[in-house]
Amino acid sequence: MATNVIRYRHAGETRWGVVEGATVKPIAGEFATTRDFMLRGVERLRSGDGLEHSGPPLSEVEVLCPITEDRQFLCQAVNYGTHMRESGLDPDASPFNIFFRKASSCLAPADSDIVKPAHVEFLDYEVEIGLVFSRDVSGPTEVRADNLHEHVGALVLLNDVSARDVQLPEMQFYKGKSYRTFGPAGPYLTLVTREDLARFDALRLELSVNGQTRQSSLASDMVHKPPATLTELSSFQNWEAGDILATGTPGGCALRAPPKPIMMLAQVMSPKRRQKLIRRAAQKNPRRLEPGDLVEASIRTDDAAIDLGVQRNRVVTMG
Amino acid sequence: MATNVIRYRHAGETRWGVVEGATVKPIAGEFATTRDFMLRGVERLRSGDGLEHSGPPLSEVEVLCPITEDRQFLCQAVNYGTHMRESGLDPDASPFNIFFRKASSCLAPADSDIVKPAHVEFLDYEVEIGLVFSRDVSGPTEVRADNLHEHVGALVLLNDVSARDVQLPEMQFYKGKSYRTFGPAGPYLTLVTREDLARFDALRLELSVNGQTRQSSLASDMVHKPPATLTELSSFQNWEAGDILATGTPGGCALRAPPKPIMMLAQVMSPKRRQKLIRRAAQKNPRRLEPGDLVEASIRTDDAAIDLGVQRNRVVTMG
Repeated sequence: MATNVIRYRHAGETRWGVVEGATVKPIAGEFATTRDFMLRGVERLRSGDGLEHSGPPLSEVEVLCPITEDRQFLCQAVNYGTHMRESGLDPDASPFNIFFRKASSCLAPADSDIVKPAHVEFLDYEVEIGLVFSRDVSGPTEVRADNLHEHVGALVLLNDVSARDVQLPEMQFYKGKSYRTFGPAGPYLTLVTREDLARFDALRLELSVNGQTRQSSLASDMVHKPPATLTELSSFQNWEAGDILATGTPGGCALRAPPKPIMMLAQVMSPKRRQKLIRRAAQKNPRRLEPGDLVEASIRTDDAAIDLGVQRNRVVTMG
Repeated sequence: MATNVIRYRHAGETRWGVVEGATVKPIAGEFATTRDFMLRGVERLRSGDGLEHSGPPLSEVEVLCPITEDRQFLCQAVNYGTHMRESGLDPDASPFNIFFRKASSCLAPADSDIVKPAHVEFLDYEVEIGLVFSRDVSGPTEVRADNLHEHVGALVLLNDVSARDVQLPEMQFYKGKSYRTFGPAGPYLTLVTREDLARFDALRLELSVNGQTRQSSLASDMVHKPPATLTELSSFQNWEAGDILATGTPGGCALRAPPKPIMMLAQVMSPKRRQKLIRRAAQKNPRRLEPGDLVEASIRTDDAAIDLGVQRNRVVTMG
């Protein structure tokens, strides 16, 4: 059964604890990083005597980002059929599982403000399931449905906030997706068992802006699933416990590809002209995020047996 | 004056030491990561009593990668006029300073074999100057020529090895540049002073394959220089001491852009067709790296006052 853990601050101390109703039960021990927690804290919790009997009310603690900044923030690019189509890509002609990185310093607590840099004119949202690794991997590893639970110890709700007018003209996604606060994570580190992971496809990703639903899809729409993805990832790089992989977002983003002829034209434009085109289109796009907007995201199975929690993020301007 | 430090293994211990002629003089203290060394080791060395009087011959130690795998491996994309032109880009129409990441697990000692994955058909080299940060930065910071030395504590020789037939069809550079062994670094961590950094433009980057010179350029050909680059980097993300930034490679790579009409056509092709096109071109490209090739790279001022050392890397196949 899935267990919701938070990293929190209370009475001057940073702790990890299990959320039980309106209470947080602290887990005995100190775990400075998400790696420490995934390696030692989870074991402590599973041992049976790691959980303290009482703790503070959830309403009285400060919920911190469950992923510490020392961890790798790995991402899969366009990985849902619906998002591929709205991005102007053909799911049948996109044979690669494309990875990229976000700077880990963009990680933020679940309910943080999203800070729009002054020069960004096309701010967008992407609700995503984050896989949290439970062990270190330093060589090619075959990950299958039946051993996925040995590698994925937890799931985490992520918003892959994106400055489209930086990301797309620059071609490399890194900068446009790495600004500080562009990676709200949590509130929970949802520890999952083999049985929970068997229900992965039944996770529903939802995101609304000012109460209006923008994204609502099941994980079953995912193109490159976790077992094949981790097998390929391990073929070229190492990871450690507590590192995370954002698995892509479903359709419903503010971004919509222009008609095919304009897409083709944009590909051969100079980067600066492409940026101008994207900014002009953004000005007429009522879905782009603006200061004051409230973004709410959630991921859960429809029966709520697995529930990664809710994020509420206000868009603000810098300074 | 520049000081060449190595991280090395000798008599069962991992140490840091200063290279003086044919001898390594150990630096007192333990520094588990490059961050520890840049924060505490350099200070210890500067204090005057941190250096032991005698040490092992350089020929008897195993030189390790001077950058530990926990550090961020940041990169600038096309950043020399000569490399822009051979990549089919117009230096005057490339207004962005484009950043990307390599997985830190691709870091390898200076003289490591470069392991070509079996499916890669177009392996390429890129000699680059790596900046090594000396302090943590967690907010926008103005870096100028006159305070650059407060942020860049060392330089390191890097080879940004690249699988062009993965990097280019997938558009995102991450996977094609992250395979294990694709980031030989060192041999030295070359500690630099303000006066050394004032000579940055006079650093000559050279790379040969089987004794034939392929790259030979001065850093003065660099488009986005370190002060402006670090100022922009700090505007969107944090870094820590010991993290590195690869500043791009000059012209001379195996990669050459095809004629303009084919470039434009490739942009609108499906990713799979683009990969086929790149692989077909690679087969006729005598400059691509093949198993058995010896790649030698060096970076130094012509008077050798600043000398980042030499890398010798043999290309091998996996397994």
